[in-house]
Amino acid sequence: MANPVRIGVSGALGRMGRAVAAVVRAEPGASLGPLADRPDRAGEAIEGAKLASFDELLAGSDVIVDFSTPAASLALARAAAQRGGPALVVGTTGLSPEEVSWLDEASERTAIVRSGNYSLGLNVLLGLVEQAARALQARDWDIEVSESHHRRKVDAPSGTALMLGEAAARGREVSLAQVAIRARDGVTGPRPEGGIGFSVVRGGGIIGEHAVSFAAEEEIITLAHSARDRGLFARGAVAAALWAAGRPPGLYDMMDVLGFREAR
Amino acid sequence: MANPVRIGVSGALGRMGRAVAAVVRAEPGASLGPLADRPDRAGEAIEGAKLASFDELLAGSDVIVDFSTPAASLALARAAAQRGGPALVVGTTGLSPEEVSWLDEASERTAIVRSGNYSLGLNVLLGLVEQAARALQARDWDIEVSESHHRRKVDAPSGTALMLGEAAARGREVSLAQVAIRARDGVTGPRPEGGIGFSVVRGGGIIGEHAVSFAAEEEIITLAHSARDRGLFARGAVAAALWAAGRPPGLYDMMDVLGFREAR
Amino acid sequence: MANPVRIGVSGALGRMGRAVAAVVRAEPGASLGPLADRPDRAGEAIEGAKLASFDELLAGSDVIVDFSTPAASLALARAAAQRGGPALVVGTTGLSPEEVSWLDEASERTAIVRSGNYSLGLNVLLGLVEQAARALQARDWDIEVSESHHRRKVDAPSGTALMLGEAAARGREVSLAQVAIRARDGVTGPRPEGGIGFSVVRGGGIIGEHAVSFAAEEEIITLAHSARDRGLFARGAVAAALWAAGRPPGLYDMMDVLGFREAR
Amino acid sequence: MANPVRIGVSGALGRMGRAVAAVVRAEPGASLGPLADRPDRAGEAIEGAKLASFDELLAGSDVIVDFSTPAASLALARAAAQRGGPALVVGTTGLSPEEVSWLDEASERTAIVRSGNYSLGLNVLLGLVEQAARALQARDWDIEVSESHHRRKVDAPSGTALMLGEAAARGREVSLAQVAIRARDGVTGPRPEGGIGFSVVRGGGIIGEHAVSFAAEEEIITLAHSARDRGLFARGAVAAALWAAGRPPGLYDMMDVLGFREAR
Repeated sequence: MANPVRIGVSGALGRMGRAVAAVVRAEPGASLGPLADRPDRAGEAIEGAKLASFDELLAGSDVIVDFSTPAASLALARAAAQRGGPALVVGTTGLSPEEVSWLDEASERTAIVRSGNYSLGLNVLLGLVEQAARALQARDWDIEVSESHHRRKVDAPSGTALMLGEAAARGREVSLAQVAIRARDGVTGPRPEGGIGFSVVRGGGIIGEHAVSFAAEEEIITLAHSARDRGLFARGAVAAALWAAGRPPGLYDMMDVLGFREAR
Repeated sequence: MANPVRIGVSGALGRMGRAVAAVVRAEPGASLGPLADRPDRAGEAIEGAKLASFDELLAGSDVIVDFSTPAASLALARAAAQRGGPALVVGTTGLSPEEVSWLDEASERTAIVRSGNYSLGLNVLLGLVEQAARALQARDWDIEVSESHHRRKVDAPSGTALMLGEAAARGREVSLAQVAIRARDGVTGPRPEGGIGFSVVRGGGIIGEHAVSFAAEEEIITLAHSARDRGLFARGAVAAALWAAGRPPGLYDMMDVLGFREAR
Repeated sequence: MANPVRIGVSGALGRMGRAVAAVVRAEPGASLGPLADRPDRAGEAIEGAKLASFDELLAGSDVIVDFSTPAASLALARAAAQRGGPALVVGTTGLSPEEVSWLDEASERTAIVRSGNYSLGLNVLLGLVEQAARALQARDWDIEVSESHHRRKVDAPSGTALMLGEAAARGREVSLAQVAIRARDGVTGPRPEGGIGFSVVRGGGIIGEHAVSFAAEEEIITLAHSARDRGLFARGAVAAALWAAGRPPGLYDMMDVLGFREAR
Repeated sequence: MANPVRIGVSGALGRMGRAVAAVVRAEPGASLGPLADRPDRAGEAIEGAKLASFDELLAGSDVIVDFSTPAASLALARAAAQRGGPALVVGTTGLSPEEVSWLDEASERTAIVRSGNYSLGLNVLLGLVEQAARALQARDWDIEVSESHHRRKVDAPSGTALMLGEAAARGREVSLAQVAIRARDGVTGPRPEGGIGFSVVRGGGIIGEHAVSFAAEEEIITLAHSARDRGLFARGAVAAALWAAGRPPGLYDMMDVLGFREAR
């Protein structure tokens, strides 16, 4: 039997970093590698261990799961690229296009997985939505993306709803920006052919519900995902890490992890 | 056994008028009374009969189902009031507030049922929504009204969605105008307590789907209605007619027909 | 301002008892009264306090929330009846019909709330289902109860699905046992008029989804509840306790707590 | 521009045959070819034309849509095979395995499309379900197929629900017969890993609702189809006919028509 994959954690003091460490501890095929956070916290105690330095993290991991800051993620990616490893799974949000391109550059020398949503199910849904949008022509099938989140969420539609819209637009070979219908109120006129509509619900503690409907004159297909526990996203990142370990250099996303890339 | 109720039809040449006549023909407890439309069409042939005059319609009906124009509905209501009958079921849309008050006046001398939606199920839902909104306090439960209609619908939210919002607001003893959240796009901030949100889907041939959700931190109640056939609305109007025949003067709506009024 | 209601806990070492205590601590209108469990554990430490004796529990509470054993619940009810208080909220399951009748007897001298499901939302749904079943006649509307639970649940349909079926049967003034359709497989023949059907889904970690559909020829009403967190049931029991404190003797359930009883 | 495809109809006097002819008349890329039914009815009048003979049907069509009887379908397939055309779209149900193998044989010399459900949307769903079942491993994801149909349906689960179960089983590379859980009532024990469950709702006039859920511990994917009009199935058969015209010999199904075959 193969050795367990050593998974290090960057951003180990954050909510996601802690959740990732907990999932790794329970995963039979993995062992928990170094936990690191900001350089000035190295050496501090964390759940029976102590926080690793940047170099210890790189040296002691087969793959690193990173939910930190754009600057920290980039530093990590460049160091890993220079050393030819370890692989990275990046869940940090808020990267600028320029930062994304630097990550892309680093991926020429080490495997990097990057995604805006590490839920396995949601990513499977993205693949299915793209396929369905390709198979169902715009003349007959209207695409609508609906999402529901808790009352504390401050923006709309959710980033994941937009990812679903992008997947549908890819399947249709159109630009989402050109066909998106972002809200409806008052006299809207008839629905434009080829549009991709969004609708938004906010209430209570809903963790995240997403549905993409394809509505024709006489039938409706609905592809939906419901998140029921926030731990979900940590599990997905660890699954990505197990997949990425030992993988050749390249920029990957959850579609690759799930094997949907070949299917297209 | 009682004599069948004679149901006359006003607006008999319209889409709804024809549908109403078809439902009456198939209803064991009813017989089809005179069919009338605009005065200048009286005497024309219609499905094996001929169109009745205004007076023939009034004289030959125990109750009249009226899907016509505001002017025709008012003329009918005044004539029925003067004669002390027959009862009326009014489905005409687009009445001004002044016209509604005249209808109200006429109802002092004959029974008039008026509703914006004669689907039995939808009206049952209105009653349930009001009750639920009364039972579930605003601090904990967020109310959201969602609706889906076909791609040809030109306004949003649907009139029925607004009726559902009104029912929820009544249960909460607030004014819908003051708490409605009509659309969400971009940076919205957190959801305001006590708000009643609306979301809108348009696509394909969807006849009409409505759902009212009550979302709390740890649970969600959803009360939904799905219309599957346009004939539905004609059936509801005929049920209202059977209820209204012989009823004392007064202005009623489907809540009365369904017996939900007493429950409150 | 009124003094906070002192809520004692019976069965304080159990999963539900602990959850109830946590909810009471966070509730502004309540203060946590004595925590008690089996007599031989009295005096043991529990979260900064010590377990109370049976007498201390009775003397120090305005109302007691009890998720324990049938024997313990009965002893508590009888002692409270003899003393003329405090009120009780009983969530203990597995009582025999005889034990239930003894509880009923005790309720002649102290207020007792008893329910199989303390989720506020689910109990609101019960009231709505009964009303809808009363309003929608069996000739036209078929009632179907659907439920989904996690893969570890070992029986079907859920107790709550049966409660929903009972509510529908009450609205229809029939006996559930006589109209229940418990499963369908193979050649079933057409659906019998007036039947109340059940369907069951098992999978993953689903906490509890219930839906009651009323399906007519051209429309469908669906009344649904989705539980998203197990803490839900503790919150409902505490809401019942706040309602029961100071209430006159009688046997109540969540329908009373929610004010649905008057509506009927 | 290419000539319109001449689509002949076999079983033209049946409900599906008439619906197919109506759809072809409205389809810009097609012209209505000969209409045929039982040999003894040839020459009879049908909607402004007269019923064609067997030979006229074969000679005057680029492709024939056939909703008839097993015997008639086989005769048609053999004659088409002998002549090297036209292509066939077979929607006839109730063929024995032996009759299916004869159809297979005929397809060596003419293109034959055969399917148990010609709804485009449902067939897209079949492809998506197979893909999702392949991507989501049985240890974590439980598959459940739910279906709802009108009160007159006499068997359960529906043939289409079983097709969806087969698609899921194919994705999992298991035999549906070995993993199907057909109904649940009473003490069922925990859900077996890898099982594919079925649940059935019957009520009102529901034309056909199908959903396949993949439920994990913390998330649920649902892939659903709702048929809203019976004309749907005729449209799908005509789309298959347009695809099949001029196609090389072979046995095809809707997965080929929709281009899902290559995607696998």
